[in-house]
Amino acid sequence: MYYQPEIETIKRSELQKLQVERLKRSIDIALHSPFYAKILGEKGITSDSISTVEDIRKLPFTTKADLREYYPFGLVATDMKNVVRLHSSSGTTGNPTVICHSQHDLDQWANRVARCMYMVGIRNTDVFQNTSGYGMFTGGLGFQYGAERLGALTVPAAAGNSLRQVKFITDFGTTAIHAIPSYATRLAEVLFECGIDPRKDTKLKTLIIGAEPHTEEQRKRIEELLGVKAYNSFGMSEMSGPGVAFECTYQNGLHLWEDCFLMEIIDPETLEPVPDGEIGELVLTTLDRDAMPLLRYRTRDLTRIIPGECPCGRTHRRIDRLKGRSDDMFIVKGVNIFPMQIEKILLQFKELGTNYLITIETIGNNDELMIDVELGELFTDDYSQLQQLTKEITHRLKDEILLTPKVKLVDRGSLPQSDGKAVRVKDLRKK
Amino acid sequence: MYYQPEIETIKRSELQKLQVERLKRSIDIALHSPFYAKILGEKGITSDSISTVEDIRKLPFTTKADLREYYPFGLVATDMKNVVRLHSSSGTTGNPTVICHSQHDLDQWANRVARCMYMVGIRNTDVFQNTSGYGMFTGGLGFQYGAERLGALTVPAAAGNSLRQVKFITDFGTTAIHAIPSYATRLAEVLFECGIDPRKDTKLKTLIIGAEPHTEEQRKRIEELLGVKAYNSFGMSEMSGPGVAFECTYQNGLHLWEDCFLMEIIDPETLEPVPDGEIGELVLTTLDRDAMPLLRYRTRDLTRIIPGECPCGRTHRRIDRLKGRSDDMFIVKGVNIFPMQIEKILLQFKELGTNYLITIETIGNNDELMIDVELGELFTDDYSQLQQLTKEITHRLKDEILLTPKVKLVDRGSLPQSDGKAVRVKDLRKK
Repeated sequence: MYYQPEIETIKRSELQKLQVERLKRSIDIALHSPFYAKILGEKGITSDSISTVEDIRKLPFTTKADLREYYPFGLVATDMKNVVRLHSSSGTTGNPTVICHSQHDLDQWANRVARCMYMVGIRNTDVFQNTSGYGMFTGGLGFQYGAERLGALTVPAAAGNSLRQVKFITDFGTTAIHAIPSYATRLAEVLFECGIDPRKDTKLKTLIIGAEPHTEEQRKRIEELLGVKAYNSFGMSEMSGPGVAFECTYQNGLHLWEDCFLMEIIDPETLEPVPDGEIGELVLTTLDRDAMPLLRYRTRDLTRIIPGECPCGRTHRRIDRLKGRSDDMFIVKGVNIFPMQIEKILLQFKELGTNYLITIETIGNNDELMIDVELGELFTDDYSQLQQLTKEITHRLKDEILLTPKVKLVDRGSLPQSDGKAVRVKDLRKK
Repeated sequence: MYYQPEIETIKRSELQKLQVERLKRSIDIALHSPFYAKILGEKGITSDSISTVEDIRKLPFTTKADLREYYPFGLVATDMKNVVRLHSSSGTTGNPTVICHSQHDLDQWANRVARCMYMVGIRNTDVFQNTSGYGMFTGGLGFQYGAERLGALTVPAAAGNSLRQVKFITDFGTTAIHAIPSYATRLAEVLFECGIDPRKDTKLKTLIIGAEPHTEEQRKRIEELLGVKAYNSFGMSEMSGPGVAFECTYQNGLHLWEDCFLMEIIDPETLEPVPDGEIGELVLTTLDRDAMPLLRYRTRDLTRIIPGECPCGRTHRRIDRLKGRSDDMFIVKGVNIFPMQIEKILLQFKELGTNYLITIETIGNNDELMIDVELGELFTDDYSQLQQLTKEITHRLKDEILLTPKVKLVDRGSLPQSDGKAVRVKDLRKK
């Protein structure tokens, strides 16, 4: 049932002891890098500064900008001869970010991924097809090494070529797939186009989805299309790659491996911790990486800790599926609001389309939040029905964001369309 | 100096003992697969049939057609739960060929690749950039695992995006690269276009080239352009991938790892062994693969054993760089001839261009071999000089192929051009 029972079900008190120990060790190691020698040195911080996990707040944050400024090897804390792999971001603007790994780091990474896959029932009898890009993209080698560690039969299909993916699925009897949500949907389409009903004509049973934000509704649709259980995977190259947090079979949040990462959720404005259960920015500290530890790394990803225990018995706390990026956050009347919170509510109304626009404007002396949302294709133009719908949406939004927005239903196609990343928020306030 | 001294410099007599032992073991394992159970069973062959390496001739050959007929898992000789990876060919026509690996197989494969890289001076202080495609293509994961095993800093750049490759080379201080010959040339061009002289402005010193046939002249040119030593690599997915044979620093042929592969060179027509030093088809038997041993696999690759000992001290025999494919072979007056033999001679004449055409025709009762070859751009039209050149070429060709061809020098551009694979041989004989 557990890949590493002693770690996965460790008592919280033991886990915290382990975290303190590993945090102290990570600081000792980090001090060998030019970057941390400088920024920890300036504050006189050493491993002696740490006696409890809360002491982590004495440390400064690390950001993507730091990684870029100290590009490529300014955060490496070991002799380069101990580094056996690097992964680099594409770096379309400015320097890419580079993460370096020792053999120990790769081993522990593979171990974490194996732990995740085992958690959702993948075993050495499974056939695992990985549709990630390989090479620099960590979803490729990350899952490859993890699945091999588990002993599954790995099919390194890599990205693209859907007809070939379909041939692999049928010919090799693939039971588990890793894909981004949009590609999972595409694969289902191609399977049906080939006259193959994935629910009856394949052995597919498990889907691992990550890298792209998606809603519970999307997950359900993919599960029905492919006849699989789909599990959320969270990772990022700065934290090695996949294997940071992962859903168990209860599908009620992602267990974050707290023996390897120290997690904080902070308010991205005040940088103070938010109470358990509230949304904020995820900040992670590596606890088991030797070549290049990262301390209090601001991921910019928004999530919340799901309070309470999970029936699966694992004691590692769960985070909620990602709510977007902290860079997207805006503040109205002192309340932090994330576009994903609003989108989530709107998507629950079958009467609505998928296009919407959030506008914040100063009217008189007040900041007002306005939400225009397109109606779906077949909805009525009966005025009283529309009025009733508007009321309901407003009510549900208020529950979520604690503010009453001005909701306006508009005709389909009347909001600006976008080819790339949609612009969802217009801030017209006087600064 | 050696990665595994005890294996690399093993006495020939010990090596043969090891080979017999491992061959017997491989037969025992292979008999668990449907394919070998059938074809060995029909001949009553078991490991007891083997007492010397020469006894391998009792076994039937295995061909690519067999792999296709028993697609996908008919040659797998172990429980599928022990298989942790498969590599599949693209299979553009008919079924692809699939090779399955156990954890042991992957370990031994990584070990062989590490052995090869160490042999040409790559160490854990090197930065190794792999420009192979990853995923199903074995040059990607094959070199990745091998280089990590060695402890080099691996940069999994994968194929394409030359500007990014150049950025990696300069920013990460890449010292060793794996590339196909044509891409190595392309990289040199892009480096110069970026104002970077690879000989002075980079740390490049070692190039591993494989997968594409190339001449000694091409190697020399690439070495000069990049300021590196370039080493030939031989492998094929049926034999796991790279790490089958590799040049040492003497660059005088490729040591084939005979503890892992039993090598034969056969006449592709008679299927009998050719004498040492003569060109024939390479036939390989895996000696250390558990999930899917291959016995007497006809590679279709043409080469010869280089007689004599190598000054490097390794006792594993050397094969010559590949001479083409046995499918390209033709027979004139009882002599086996390969187009690459002719091409090699023609390329040695600076007066000639690169386009040529071989015609075989029945004239009277005799088969005649005619070679038309284009002159280079700047060569004379002085008749006596041309006559002298023709004589010299004919003489050198006779030394190589043991027949006197009729050589005709033609003007540049007068032979048919080809966009894809050039048609080099026209057989006009009456059958």
